[in-house]
Amino acid sequence: MTKYSLFKQAPGLPVTVTLPDWVQNLVHWDQPYADDQAKMALAIELSKQNVLQGTGGPFGTAIFDRATGLLLGVGVNRVVPHSNSTLHGETVAIMQAEQALGHFTLAAAGGRELFTSCEPCAMCLGAVLWSGVNRLVCAGVAADARAIGFDEGPVFTESYQYLENAGIEVVRGFMQPEAKAVLDLYASSGGRIYNGADAATD
Amino acid sequence: MTKYSLFKQAPGLPVTVTLPDWVQNLVHWDQPYADDQAKMALAIELSKQNVLQGTGGPFGTAIFDRATGLLLGVGVNRVVPHSNSTLHGETVAIMQAEQALGHFTLAAAGGRELFTSCEPCAMCLGAVLWSGVNRLVCAGVAADARAIGFDEGPVFTESYQYLENAGIEVVRGFMQPEAKAVLDLYASSGGRIYNGADAATD
Repeated sequence: MTKYSLFKQAPGLPVTVTLPDWVQNLVHWDQPYADDQAKMALAIELSKQNVLQGTGGPFGTAIFDRATGLLLGVGVNRVVPHSNSTLHGETVAIMQAEQALGHFTLAAAGGRELFTSCEPCAMCLGAVLWSGVNRLVCAGVAADARAIGFDEGPVFTESYQYLENAGIEVVRGFMQPEAKAVLDLYASSGGRIYNGADAATD
Repeated sequence: MTKYSLFKQAPGLPVTVTLPDWVQNLVHWDQPYADDQAKMALAIELSKQNVLQGTGGPFGTAIFDRATGLLLGVGVNRVVPHSNSTLHGETVAIMQAEQALGHFTLAAAGGRELFTSCEPCAMCLGAVLWSGVNRLVCAGVAADARAIGFDEGPVFTESYQYLENAGIEVVRGFMQPEAKAVLDLYASSGGRIYNGADAATD
């Protein structure tokens, strides 16, 4: 690769975003998830398995159709394995659901809802808005992520107010202890904290 | 596809993010871009060609190595063609550069800089922070995007301050008229305004 001396591979090639193989064994697409607790339990289990299987950071997201309770898409953090700082649990789940549904917005008459194991960072809070879901349910709070070293970026009280003004119902701190336990598991097992300003040392 | 009745394709498959074919003919990887004007001219030309070629929304981004002036990655908005609301010019360019460099952050001793044809939306402002660039240069202002119907999301004065506090130099309104002309071209040619709350009608 003498032509592109800074690069490890030629620039401009397609970027492929995958879910870890274990995900399909954890989810069910054919039966509804019964209630908020079942939906959030899935998001948190995704975050936990992502740590245990070593396939990314300690964050998981699941998106549901509100009218039926059916799962539309899931995501886990893939930043380090995919060398891609945009691949948080929320963005991966949104990409997945939109691709499966074949549209750039999840907006629908009965509404869609996004369950995430931790309050979204600044990037993902914006991504939630563009996804067209009309309900956002968060387990861990931003302080839980910050406590183990993750930056959450510029998220303010007004940021959540903006979502609510756009018609998105926001629930925060639902099943927070279970989600925080996964963050603490990641930290105690030496999981990598991959903020943007980290020096590119490998 | 009776098994997954809500889906147009099976859920959980890889998502592939491409650049339009015309991009490789517009950029050069082997010679440095001389100055801010040359760098921003590329970002704006990417936005313009994306409109003219019908390959996405009116936004383009280019990322450079500050020490050498070499191009590291480019992006254009791919929301509608890829049915993916996360694929703004900035996120695509960040994915591209990180994949080519083989790392989840672009941070480097000499610094990296991101030139974008319009001030980032809330999602992309967060993505810029996670990308590890230490300079952000914007042409069009958020009001230019809003004037043709695009929502920019919760971006506040404090959001830019957060980036600056994290060590990112921010320049706004550089070559703004040229960038605004592309937004107006998109609007006058009937380009689709694809905010998240749009009903999923196709």
